[in-house]
Amino acid sequence: MSRPYFPAQEGAPSPLRFTVERQVRFEEVDPLNIVWHGRYPSFFEDARVALSEKFGIGYLDCYERGILAPIKKMHVDYFRPLSFPERFTIEGILHWSEAARLNFEFIIRNKAHEVTTTGYTVQMMLDTEQNIMLIPPPFVRDFLDRWQKGEIR
Amino acid sequence: MSRPYFPAQEGAPSPLRFTVERQVRFEEVDPLNIVWHGRYPSFFEDARVALSEKFGIGYLDCYERGILAPIKKMHVDYFRPLSFPERFTIEGILHWSEAARLNFEFIIRNKAHEVTTTGYTVQMMLDTEQNIMLIPPPFVRDFLDRWQKGEIR
Amino acid sequence: MSRPYFPAQEGAPSPLRFTVERQVRFEEVDPLNIVWHGRYPSFFEDARVALSEKFGIGYLDCYERGILAPIKKMHVDYFRPLSFPERFTIEGILHWSEAARLNFEFIIRNKAHEVTTTGYTVQMMLDTEQNIMLIPPPFVRDFLDRWQKGEIR
Amino acid sequence: MSRPYFPAQEGAPSPLRFTVERQVRFEEVDPLNIVWHGRYPSFFEDARVALSEKFGIGYLDCYERGILAPIKKMHVDYFRPLSFPERFTIEGILHWSEAARLNFEFIIRNKAHEVTTTGYTVQMMLDTEQNIMLIPPPFVRDFLDRWQKGEIR
Repeated sequence: MSRPYFPAQEGAPSPLRFTVERQVRFEEVDPLNIVWHGRYPSFFEDARVALSEKFGIGYLDCYERGILAPIKKMHVDYFRPLSFPERFTIEGILHWSEAARLNFEFIIRNKAHEVTTTGYTVQMMLDTEQNIMLIPPPFVRDFLDRWQKGEIR
Repeated sequence: MSRPYFPAQEGAPSPLRFTVERQVRFEEVDPLNIVWHGRYPSFFEDARVALSEKFGIGYLDCYERGILAPIKKMHVDYFRPLSFPERFTIEGILHWSEAARLNFEFIIRNKAHEVTTTGYTVQMMLDTEQNIMLIPPPFVRDFLDRWQKGEIR
Repeated sequence: MSRPYFPAQEGAPSPLRFTVERQVRFEEVDPLNIVWHGRYPSFFEDARVALSEKFGIGYLDCYERGILAPIKKMHVDYFRPLSFPERFTIEGILHWSEAARLNFEFIIRNKAHEVTTTGYTVQMMLDTEQNIMLIPPPFVRDFLDRWQKGEIR
Repeated sequence: MSRPYFPAQEGAPSPLRFTVERQVRFEEVDPLNIVWHGRYPSFFEDARVALSEKFGIGYLDCYERGILAPIKKMHVDYFRPLSFPERFTIEGILHWSEAARLNFEFIIRNKAHEVTTTGYTVQMMLDTEQNIMLIPPPFVRDFLDRWQKGEIR
């Protein structure tokens, strides 16, 4: 799959963005001193958790209401390596969706601001009976309303 | 991206398949007792390493010849969870390519033989100067020849 | 702390032993191609889980009865490295204790049967109110009785 | 082993201390929502790396000079759990030694400043032939001199 991972929809509000910093750990690199490809889900999660918590739609916000938002798809494109003990940023970008799903894109950049890695995750919301929800639950609906009105960014 | 991840090519030899077994570890599950989505790259790698080593195209086979085969793309589709201490199988499926790349598909099945997770990885081969190779190196060319002639399966 | 980690007690039944096999994964080694020191808790856990499940005193056996057995101490002594994709064995050794605790020793050996790593963990049992238990719960008491009578080994 | 892990030596300079912060990740907790015991080596490493780099005796400082400082012992004592998404601090404490070794103690505290976990690691320095060094290499000797003179703290 090529970018854009989530094509722009006419009339949709701009994506929400949040960037976190992290440093490559010694335990994360392989014999070539580059980050093992399987560590990136953890990097993506840091940005996803930070953005979700900021907007009140994180794991605990869902869990308290009996809702789960498991990841149904994950994709990573690797362009450049990261090495120990390099610092890097992970930008999480939440794309608009009216469905009970969370479409996150991720962009990792090294210190020179080069894009090293991109990817996305798709989460589907499940209700207390673990059925896929057809429409977002009220607290997410509120979040979407405020987003659409431009009250959050 | 929907399956087939790698569409069948006319005249290409059948994919090579290899299945490994694994058991969910306590450390691999989350507070809901389901495997955290970021563990699956490790599961895929078990099948990829086993199949690659079986056919002499593994990490060490490449490394000894100054060749690297880093992962450029990874994709995971999650259908059903796995729990501790469940046993499961990971089938690695190497799809035919004449290029200097390795296209692996993965199918994870639980004990009831239900497909829980699928995905793929794409590896590109780099030569000793870390340039992308336009054609496969000799030892991979030999492997492809034997595969095409039906000598390995 | 030097071995013996758990000094022999007069009149106590012989320790119970169980050995599992594992292969070093690519993701487990560091830039020097030796297993990162922080992976060994996972190696120890494989042997502890296998032995505990064999004798009906594992995580799920406890959990079903409202009992937890968290690890209170862990120690590792590193003698020789392990490399990718080396095969090795982990021997778990459960030492006798009449208290509501599990004293496990671990010995890791490489293919040449050399001891590469040793260590131990101590688990204390907590009841349904998360208080430390002064005596083992009935199902563990039964296990200890059978052990003492030589019915299990 | 009980604390003090490294008994005070008469006339030795005070230990060097450095504290880092970290937040429990979702991937780090187990089905009981407490950090799996095997994650703590990673927590300790964060403080060890930060302190070592600050004083010029880190992995890369050694590696550039052909010296390795592998971990020979690791010990962890678990007193209280940590949960997702709790913030905590890891204090690394380097104890004085004139030998070619690094004796690190670690103290993890939760947000209420309660000690949740303590432990230590011992590293031995190996020269370019991978022999254990009997005395510290010059750059470490310099570091020890400055420490003893009170120039660093």
